Amino acid sequence: MNEDSIVRRLRRRNRLIGDDCAIIASRANEDLLFTADFSIEEVHFRRDGPPENVGHRALARSLSDIAAMGGTPRFCLVSLALAGWAGDKWIAAFYRGLLKLANKHKTALAGGDLSHANQVICDVMVCGSVAKGQALRRDGARPGDIIYVSGPLGGWRHKPLAEPRLEFGRRLLGNATACMDISDGLSRDLRRLCLASNVSAALDAIPIVKGASVEEALHDGEDYELLFTAPPGVRVGGIAIGIVKKGRPGRITYENRPLPQLGYDHFSNRR
Amino acid sequence: MNEDSIVRRLRRRNRLIGDDCAIIASRANEDLLFTADFSIEEVHFRRDGPPENVGHRALARSLSDIAAMGGTPRFCLVSLALAGWAGDKWIAAFYRGLLKLANKHKTALAGGDLSHANQVICDVMVCGSVAKGQALRRDGARPGDIIYVSGPLGGWRHKPLAEPRLEFGRRLLGNATACMDISDGLSRDLRRLCLASNVSAALDAIPIVKGASVEEALHDGEDYELLFTAPPGVRVGGIAIGIVKKGRPGRITYENRPLPQLGYDHFSNRR
Repeated sequence: MNEDSIVRRLRRRNRLIGDDCAIIASRANEDLLFTADFSIEEVHFRRDGPPENVGHRALARSLSDIAAMGGTPRFCLVSLALAGWAGDKWIAAFYRGLLKLANKHKTALAGGDLSHANQVICDVMVCGSVAKGQALRRDGARPGDIIYVSGPLGGWRHKPLAEPRLEFGRRLLGNATACMDISDGLSRDLRRLCLASNVSAALDAIPIVKGASVEEALHDGEDYELLFTAPPGVRVGGIAIGIVKKGRPGRITYENRPLPQLGYDHFSNRR
Repeated sequence: MNEDSIVRRLRRRNRLIGDDCAIIASRANEDLLFTADFSIEEVHFRRDGPPENVGHRALARSLSDIAAMGGTPRFCLVSLALAGWAGDKWIAAFYRGLLKLANKHKTALAGGDLSHANQVICDVMVCGSVAKGQALRRDGARPGDIIYVSGPLGGWRHKPLAEPRLEFGRRLLGNATACMDISDGLSRDLRRLCLASNVSAALDAIPIVKGASVEEALHDGEDYELLFTAPPGVRVGGIAIGIVKKGRPGRITYENRPLPQLGYDHFSNRR
């Protein structure tokens, strides 16, 4: 396959590709949400894993960001740099996995770039929409709010086809005071939410995926569950894990002891 | 620098970064344009080149796509995977070059992703806007139209800071029948325009950058000049290089001989 033939094949299935840019009609009374996420061989996936799952996860990472703001995905751009080992079968299966998830959530593949590199590297940009001014943010948590997660944590190694929590996110619109998805581990991501909201947090019970450890539930990356806050008495679904407090912004305790931040940092292993 | 500190530093300069997604207000009566382009070490740049130029070109590639459709850029997402050799100085200079061009064209840096890889790889997504239904397309060239380029070709090796032709593109709105930018060489890109428009083309005089060869002007990639068509008598600026004809779609002659396609294909050197 060369670049034009890959583009032609995708164009047959996705009418938006063809010009220098994808064209999207703008609508009044909505805000647009944009997010981009890498999926990199040796960092996010291995070449011997199922390529359908690589494609699924590459899109799921960005859809999860849309879910975290209560949005509905509209389209995606997929930039893919291929390495020599990734042959036609791998490429076809990668797109099969990605497009299956895209179709499920009515997300059009609108374009992207194709190139080559020493590793397979994919960057997926997703555009979503949400009613004007209604997007869930990180900065609205207030002391006294309950902290929730949308499901048990620590299981991402066992969930190759984790589902972005898009419906769950939409149900939080107007109810949650703050929301984000857990992509780098609860400890690191909750700290970010607390810093944005200028609050601290006390955690007690953490729901754990069967077979995972407490450490994995607290610090493992890429759970893609939603982490959110709501005032007591507001019904939001999810599992309560703690409470928002006054105090040093970003300080987090778990069972009354300070919680270290051991979540995933993409630069922690840089030379 | 770790991920949070890079994000914090960028956020100080660019107020949009912070939540899971960038939020952009939608406007009525406009279409939005989206494009993404890779800049990959060893493919698009070398590590021993000036990092400011790498940042400039990484954004210029996508801005050129916006120019090709007559759009005005609004914001960009920059996904950057860093290799161990790229230290703090390189990163800072890369963003300096990119942001200088972004500021010149009022393009906000709204987000992106950060990770690491064996090569430095950047993927820049740009969103632009254009009056509803007015975007320049590739598919409107008609037999009898004149073919133009916005400037002399073949010089990209000597133009590390090539300027995207944004103003030129906007002036073509309502005047050009088809337009695209030359990113993979005139021969390959004109063929794409002819295929989209279902026409053939005859080239005669090609304007050549001083010091470049005819071969470079015909086949070299990444000129970032605009290639466009307009009916005779419509004043559009630019340099006339040939005429649109009936005949086998995509067939191109240069000085009455068939023109081979030797432009850059990102997969031509795949194993």
